[in-house]
Amino acid sequence: MEPSCTARYIDHVGIVVKDLDAAMRLFQELFNVPTAEPQEIPDQKVRAVLLPIGQSRLELLEPLDPDSSVGRFLENRGEGLHHLAFNVENVGESLNELGRNGVRLVDLAPRDGLSGLIGFIHPAAVHGVLTELVQSVEE
Amino acid sequence: MEPSCTARYIDHVGIVVKDLDAAMRLFQELFNVPTAEPQEIPDQKVRAVLLPIGQSRLELLEPLDPDSSVGRFLENRGEGLHHLAFNVENVGESLNELGRNGVRLVDLAPRDGLSGLIGFIHPAAVHGVLTELVQSVEE
Repeated sequence: MEPSCTARYIDHVGIVVKDLDAAMRLFQELFNVPTAEPQEIPDQKVRAVLLPIGQSRLELLEPLDPDSSVGRFLENRGEGLHHLAFNVENVGESLNELGRNGVRLVDLAPRDGLSGLIGFIHPAAVHGVLTELVQSVEE
Repeated sequence: MEPSCTARYIDHVGIVVKDLDAAMRLFQELFNVPTAEPQEIPDQKVRAVLLPIGQSRLELLEPLDPDSSVGRFLENRGEGLHHLAFNVENVGESLNELGRNGVRLVDLAPRDGLSGLIGFIHPAAVHGVLTELVQSVEE
């Protein structure tokens, strides 16, 4: 079978935290990861920041509302690894191809995210890994 | 405060799965991630494989024994994201410096791992993220 799409590299790893500012300081103090400017993403009810590390980024996510996807994750599982994002050439085509191959999607079409055009695949389809596809904005 | 060490890039992302071979096929079929030869790591009671993706790797981990760290993770949390590994220049110096700064470690000294010389930091010290440091073998 032809692969549905090509994951070119790990775009970012998403980590849910209680206090984004404290977590960003910790990653700097322990691992020398550069800090960046957090942004609020109102429709996802989170504050988020992307911290550069090599070819990739760490995405720290702090819920702004306990009644949100990230807020419920924090409540149920605690702080920690949340999702894995792959960079792809074209998110729309990738989602279409995955859907055609019967893969369970969260997003049937691309939407705007912090890191470009994004789409989520359901963790049940990827061995428990909530998987995001990212198409960089500059492409 | 001086950073304890420098995370140069994401060495790999560790994912616990029930069936390594099925998971490896899935990552190839969905995302065109190349397959590789799995290895048994008897002292950790796992089968593992490192799949290249950009600068980084996906590490798939299948427990060989339910009474192991990875086996208990699978039992308690199910399949999914397990740990995050940063590449560093020198694991021994990094662990020493982290320890001196009061960071809770799993490994006080480096040991041999699938991806080189490794050492784990306790997730309680890194916002719930089980964090591994890796020093590549060729360096």
